[in-house]
Amino acid sequence: MMFGPPLRTADIPHQTLSKKVGLAVFASDNLSSVAYATEEILIVLSLAGAAYFYLSIPISIIIATMLVILTISYRQTIYAYPGGGGAYIVARDNLGEAPAQTAGAALLTDYILTVAVSISSGVAQMASAFPALYPWRVEIALGMIAIMTIVNLRGVKESGRVFAIPTYFFIVMMFLTLGMGFIQLATGTLGTVTGVERVAGEEHALQALTILLLLRAFASGSTAVTGVEAISNGITAFKEPRSKNAAQTLLVMAAILGTTFVGITLLANHIHVVVGEDVTETVISQVARTIHGEGLLYLLTVLATTVILIMAANTSYADFPRLAALHAGDGFLPKQLTFRGRRLVFSWGILTLAAVAALLIILFNAETTRLIPLYAIGVFLSFTLSQSGMVVRWQKVGKMKPGEEIEVHGSVMRYDPQWRGKRIVNAIGALMTGIVMIVFAVSKFADGAWIVVLLVPALVFVFFRIHHHYKHVAAVLAQGSRWPNIRPRPVKTLVLVDDVHSGTINTINFAKSLGVPWTAVHVAIDPEKAERTRRKWRERIGDEAYLTVLPSPYRNLVDPVHEYIEQLLEELPKGYIHVIVGHLVMDNLLEQALHQNAAVSLNLALQDLQRVAVTTVPHQLGQRENGAAPAEHPAAATPAE
Amino acid sequence: MMFGPPLRTADIPHQTLSKKVGLAVFASDNLSSVAYATEEILIVLSLAGAAYFYLSIPISIIIATMLVILTISYRQTIYAYPGGGGAYIVARDNLGEAPAQTAGAALLTDYILTVAVSISSGVAQMASAFPALYPWRVEIALGMIAIMTIVNLRGVKESGRVFAIPTYFFIVMMFLTLGMGFIQLATGTLGTVTGVERVAGEEHALQALTILLLLRAFASGSTAVTGVEAISNGITAFKEPRSKNAAQTLLVMAAILGTTFVGITLLANHIHVVVGEDVTETVISQVARTIHGEGLLYLLTVLATTVILIMAANTSYADFPRLAALHAGDGFLPKQLTFRGRRLVFSWGILTLAAVAALLIILFNAETTRLIPLYAIGVFLSFTLSQSGMVVRWQKVGKMKPGEEIEVHGSVMRYDPQWRGKRIVNAIGALMTGIVMIVFAVSKFADGAWIVVLLVPALVFVFFRIHHHYKHVAAVLAQGSRWPNIRPRPVKTLVLVDDVHSGTINTINFAKSLGVPWTAVHVAIDPEKAERTRRKWRERIGDEAYLTVLPSPYRNLVDPVHEYIEQLLEELPKGYIHVIVGHLVMDNLLEQALHQNAAVSLNLALQDLQRVAVTTVPHQLGQRENGAAPAEHPAAATPAE
Repeated sequence: MMFGPPLRTADIPHQTLSKKVGLAVFASDNLSSVAYATEEILIVLSLAGAAYFYLSIPISIIIATMLVILTISYRQTIYAYPGGGGAYIVARDNLGEAPAQTAGAALLTDYILTVAVSISSGVAQMASAFPALYPWRVEIALGMIAIMTIVNLRGVKESGRVFAIPTYFFIVMMFLTLGMGFIQLATGTLGTVTGVERVAGEEHALQALTILLLLRAFASGSTAVTGVEAISNGITAFKEPRSKNAAQTLLVMAAILGTTFVGITLLANHIHVVVGEDVTETVISQVARTIHGEGLLYLLTVLATTVILIMAANTSYADFPRLAALHAGDGFLPKQLTFRGRRLVFSWGILTLAAVAALLIILFNAETTRLIPLYAIGVFLSFTLSQSGMVVRWQKVGKMKPGEEIEVHGSVMRYDPQWRGKRIVNAIGALMTGIVMIVFAVSKFADGAWIVVLLVPALVFVFFRIHHHYKHVAAVLAQGSRWPNIRPRPVKTLVLVDDVHSGTINTINFAKSLGVPWTAVHVAIDPEKAERTRRKWRERIGDEAYLTVLPSPYRNLVDPVHEYIEQLLEELPKGYIHVIVGHLVMDNLLEQALHQNAAVSLNLALQDLQRVAVTTVPHQLGQRENGAAPAEHPAAATPAE
Repeated sequence: MMFGPPLRTADIPHQTLSKKVGLAVFASDNLSSVAYATEEILIVLSLAGAAYFYLSIPISIIIATMLVILTISYRQTIYAYPGGGGAYIVARDNLGEAPAQTAGAALLTDYILTVAVSISSGVAQMASAFPALYPWRVEIALGMIAIMTIVNLRGVKESGRVFAIPTYFFIVMMFLTLGMGFIQLATGTLGTVTGVERVAGEEHALQALTILLLLRAFASGSTAVTGVEAISNGITAFKEPRSKNAAQTLLVMAAILGTTFVGITLLANHIHVVVGEDVTETVISQVARTIHGEGLLYLLTVLATTVILIMAANTSYADFPRLAALHAGDGFLPKQLTFRGRRLVFSWGILTLAAVAALLIILFNAETTRLIPLYAIGVFLSFTLSQSGMVVRWQKVGKMKPGEEIEVHGSVMRYDPQWRGKRIVNAIGALMTGIVMIVFAVSKFADGAWIVVLLVPALVFVFFRIHHHYKHVAAVLAQGSRWPNIRPRPVKTLVLVDDVHSGTINTINFAKSLGVPWTAVHVAIDPEKAERTRRKWRERIGDEAYLTVLPSPYRNLVDPVHEYIEQLLEELPKGYIHVIVGHLVMDNLLEQALHQNAAVSLNLALQDLQRVAVTTVPHQLGQRENGAAPAEHPAAATPAE
């Protein structure tokens, strides 16, 4: 009910986006980073003292320069992979399986962290405007994840318009705030931050301004460029000419990001923002409050920031399950991840994402600053692999003859006279993102980056183990299927009897209906009950079949049956043993738990034996709507038969 | 391995105890209460100020008087029920089912709290001697529960000697401490407590000394008498003459408890103990330290106290599963609780007890003072019901003729000329414990007693629901079993096919071996795969049987099969549908989770249909030791056949 009616396979939507809508759909992850990137730089610098805050300006300019290089780099990917150039695909096509799985592991990790970081930052924005919410951050964040999970399990029609409103709302509010801020700065009316509350926190002794601290500040700020790859993943969603439209959208997105990020950093310096682990108000909120006052414009800015952060988290709800399904389709993750649920969505992927993101939010108390050290390594690792893949690709292109075309997985390679220049561009991109990744991993190692440094290789290892398993199973199954000899074998039929009642009669009836000889077996867990059962069997079932009573000195049901069947298998070296068990079916799980459910344990316990089939004959209690079942006739009806 | 080899049913021990050993076995729960009873009185009084600590002396004397009445009362129960006179049995025989279930619910609750309270107090004693342990109380308590659970799952041979050492060690240490304390008091050399640490705690504003506060102090102290009923539960364990030996043991136990409890309270007052929620050292530790100094005697006293508390918790590990099995045998709890495991112990009961006690320790942070308000209501409720049962019994005895004998559940009722006097004794006992229970429930209601006040009726309700369910099922099954008409019915056999490989061949082989016509069914979750399967079927299985492909527009495996079978059932109104499913068996659960396991979901989904039997044909991968299974011959072996 909560998830809506099921959808048919034929309902998978096919729809293309204009540049304007495409920007709205793909930019939220990237643009929303400005909500925390400046703040994270300042928090690191604050360890050396607020006097060094001005260093955030050169740092943000370096990051903006990096953004330019990345944009040029990814533009080339967009033209090379009009069918979608995600890091996984580019690495798989050009670098091989191991780098591709590494890129995939990094991206999956990154998607989870996007949810955790964006939701945490979104809640922090809300708590800046309404400080009463501050103590409930974790609860609010978990509530948001729950809502997003339900919405995505229902399936989001990516209608574009839904995305367009919040993205453009955010862009407008950002430019409005920056515009008014710079006008106030020019006219000398820009104020400074007042009234920022600090919660009781530990006083940090000031650290010296070391290179390491600067690198840490730079690493924190580099989270601003996360999401820049989104458009290259989703090229197929654009209207034709796809690559051109996607590339132009990428340029616009990068321009907006660069401007807002550097702009916010500049204004934050001028208004003397207050940051630190014990400050509950976000930098965005302080900037907006100083420029707009505490009126409607302020609230709208905070609202726009919160909403775009939620939209950013939501993109992971589309990307993570899709990438997981791609991995699963290639046999590197459980196949269940490729199943589209009733509502056509990859339900298992969505649930996995939600569960891990929720766990991170609980563990890190919904604090963006504590989550940041885990973020961005994955992103930069996938950047590096994707760009390196492009370098290899240009190498191959350089060896081709003019006019020649090679198709790899739907991506067409053509000779390109400019391959040397393009190779250098991607090489610079790969080198730069690789360096940033190492800087990030080293400078943030103790703060939590070690988790990702360990996790990514561990995931890659698991992916390959899973792949090996599927390959092995497929090989074994294929081998056997060449054996064509289907022919009947002898079957020995056993009916397991716990007691003699109407359920037993039903089971016996089925056994007799098979038309083969059968014998009954009772396990004497309780010797007195065994005697009673033997007596009832003699009285009521008579000479239908012989009842063997197996002793069970250790009061175990399954072991004596297992041993007995092993004996029978030796006596019947080419045949099957067919075990028939009755199963009392109750109306609900609670009632079911009050019964032994021996059929379930026997099914489990006997499945390690070759040539043993287990039949469950359900006997329903309390359900009468299925009509005339053989054993269901009440005693009164017998004379009529 | 951890739990030792299995034990035979015939190994249930039969052993009787002397009075000395009987005291050791049954007294630990009761005697260990002195470890916290005095302290709990003082903690309540401390709310009004340490100046009122002297009131603990009259309170402890009132409680000791109550102990005398209870002892006389229970002596009568011991003589009336030589076969064991627990509250559940006495209430069941004399008051009826509802009071018996109430007594049972109260006792089960009480056993769980005995574990939680005793372990928490035991850990507090350890932390008094070794303050470094204080921050790890919860972890240590959980570790103890884990160890006790393993030991009890192995099965404890109640060899008496194991119990005798710690119980007598505790008794000796208590009398030594009290003796030296009173000698020091008499000679004027008894010091006062020094050097008690307080952890940073909230400062309580002093309360006025109200009647309610006094009642709360009394209620807290009344936990001292818990466990007095243990001997009456376990009369059968004593050597003949059972009742006499048990009654004498009860008197000795009560005398030791009364003396040590009042003695500790007196000395605690004289040495000016320091108590409060922020004091980490227990009263016992302060008393022992003041009397013995910080040497060996002090450590031995604390050790003895810790060990007897652990022994007290351990008695619940015997009592809880035994009582739960009694309830389950009468059909008021899940039948599984009556099963003795491999090691002859009631494993489910032990695990339930451990799980709930561990949960309580986590929730209440292993703080005895916070657990006490939940304790004792259950104990006093069962006291009241047990004594009321005895009153009714004397009433019946009074109506008998001299020489007449009536047997109820193995307890023989004889005329007793002193029935009037004995009735009055038990009536006083019932009235007194009833009043204490109400005092406890009211004065501690807000502190946590409400949990038990709600829990006990809820448990009784659940017990009766379970009983109703079992009676209903038995009635339905018995009715059907009078229907004697066992005869073959038509059977329609379906083989569910997911793909065509060696597993499929195995399944088909079994179906063919049954020697009846069959058809195959494939559910088209993925239309392309359905087409491939249809083609492979045509090529490899040929005309063995017809393959029906069921459409599944919503990509669901189970629903189309369910619908299809419902149709078939209508076409075959008197027969069975036999569904055969292959099941790929992996070497371990992790690998199993990588596969669809459709057999499991089909078994579950089809069990609501009457007349539908589901057969699972396991196909093992990677296991070769079971020898020549039909479908396991490698292709190379075919020519030899």
